[in-house]
Amino acid sequence: MNEQLLFNLVDLAGTFAFAISGATAARRCNLDLFGILAIAFITACGGGIARDLCIGAIPPAGLSDWRYLFTAIVAALLTIVAYPWVERLTYPVRLFDAMGLGLFAVYGAHKALLFGHNAEVAILLGMITAVGGGMARDVLLARVSIVLQKEIYALAAFAGAALAVIGEYYRWPAVWATWLPILFCFGLRFLSLHYHWNLPRFGRKQES
Amino acid sequence: MNEQLLFNLVDLAGTFAFAISGATAARRCNLDLFGILAIAFITACGGGIARDLCIGAIPPAGLSDWRYLFTAIVAALLTIVAYPWVERLTYPVRLFDAMGLGLFAVYGAHKALLFGHNAEVAILLGMITAVGGGMARDVLLARVSIVLQKEIYALAAFAGAALAVIGEYYRWPAVWATWLPILFCFGLRFLSLHYHWNLPRFGRKQES
Amino acid sequence: MNEQLLFNLVDLAGTFAFAISGATAARRCNLDLFGILAIAFITACGGGIARDLCIGAIPPAGLSDWRYLFTAIVAALLTIVAYPWVERLTYPVRLFDAMGLGLFAVYGAHKALLFGHNAEVAILLGMITAVGGGMARDVLLARVSIVLQKEIYALAAFAGAALAVIGEYYRWPAVWATWLPILFCFGLRFLSLHYHWNLPRFGRKQES
Repeated sequence: MNEQLLFNLVDLAGTFAFAISGATAARRCNLDLFGILAIAFITACGGGIARDLCIGAIPPAGLSDWRYLFTAIVAALLTIVAYPWVERLTYPVRLFDAMGLGLFAVYGAHKALLFGHNAEVAILLGMITAVGGGMARDVLLARVSIVLQKEIYALAAFAGAALAVIGEYYRWPAVWATWLPILFCFGLRFLSLHYHWNLPRFGRKQES
Repeated sequence: MNEQLLFNLVDLAGTFAFAISGATAARRCNLDLFGILAIAFITACGGGIARDLCIGAIPPAGLSDWRYLFTAIVAALLTIVAYPWVERLTYPVRLFDAMGLGLFAVYGAHKALLFGHNAEVAILLGMITAVGGGMARDVLLARVSIVLQKEIYALAAFAGAALAVIGEYYRWPAVWATWLPILFCFGLRFLSLHYHWNLPRFGRKQES
Repeated sequence: MNEQLLFNLVDLAGTFAFAISGATAARRCNLDLFGILAIAFITACGGGIARDLCIGAIPPAGLSDWRYLFTAIVAALLTIVAYPWVERLTYPVRLFDAMGLGLFAVYGAHKALLFGHNAEVAILLGMITAVGGGMARDVLLARVSIVLQKEIYALAAFAGAALAVIGEYYRWPAVWATWLPILFCFGLRFLSLHYHWNLPRFGRKQES
């Protein structure tokens, strides 16, 4: 029970951090009140909604569970009324974001397996749960997503989802199967931020 | 029966107005014949298709009911062959668009309830039915949607969908539960256009 | 049996060509390793995934069949390590792309009919199977898709899908019903490339 509570807390903390990142980006693009709320919600819940559509979990939890909508709205309003304060929160928000990344990836993979799908579906949809919202945010803001351009973000989500599927196949104890992949993804993301790791690029510079 | 006929007429008039707005935008971006047809259809039917995917109404009505495709194609061809005439039609098109907004929001919310989903799903998907097509149009035209930036558009759809759900819960008579929310959304949208109402923004200007 | 093998070969060759076009575009936009892999996969499988969501084929084959993911990754890695070579392959890649266009359109239409949907759904989703991935690629790269702007691409897919539905309705022998529409779409696309055919535009130039 305590474990479930912790899981729920991390889930909502991740939702909150994702929504903050959406609301901040929307505010910078000078969107109006509705735009900020919408982008915050889509950043937080878009990945999970895409996952639920692909595994046949109708209606998507992001639309039917009021806690996600509520958390996203609170995060968006906070970004509006206390922007300078939110800007100074960069560090904890990044921490929550990295925790959310891990939890979303692992939860997404578990849910896909629970619905009877194979390992490939689980890993891909775990990753989409974690990074899909951020990509939808950038598509709506008409820009190429940073997820596709630099840092170790989707790769950390992939690693978390893959580890979750491995843990499920080898029947690790539930606590391990849940928290080890989350911590691994979190750690990888955190280290990559700290040491400014990037994946290689192969674009124009190499050719010139 | 008369009421059903009126409903269908407003539905197709809204589809027509949405398709006109899509075709006009596509033509301005210098898309080719297919591009104009595709954007007109997506603007008119994209929101309903997203709703149907989320509530499990397979196949989406926008894809299976020829009347929507036909209406969108007629609107697109009209925009092509009689562009100066369509441009002079701005006022009636805006009127139809506002009617379509109300009807789509209310019909989307009703359909979600009919499929057994809760109030939150119904309100969110009613709003998405009404504004999703316009947002898809802007995503495909690689620009930030005006829906997210100014005017009272999504908020009017939200109000219509919410009122429809309230009417359903308190078992208003069918005519009231259908037309009152539509008229409310229409009125709100119409007044906001007339008086140039906007939602607040909190972007760069405030900080400088 | 031989026919099935040929079908699978063309299917994977088309997937490969679509993935090459995605990876090339991603590399030109200076995306990182993950970005190139993701865009290659989405270009190759995005259309089929959209189709499967719309017809209720859960999970989408693009997510559950490892051969598509594998083919897309091989194509992306090849684009990375042997870019000058891939650039010189323009002609065969265009050939494969045109073959893939035809096969995806026809296979998409067939699958929609197989799931019990009507002719309109089959034709629209056949076309979406063929062009949806390319449009998703351009949305993620924040640009207006070339599919909407010039050349005969979606129209060829439409013709292939429509012919496949006609063949099904008139109960043509299976080999004809499969390969004639594919060849027709391929031929139309190929001729349009060779003779630089475009659909008409009606944009700014006409007005000035």
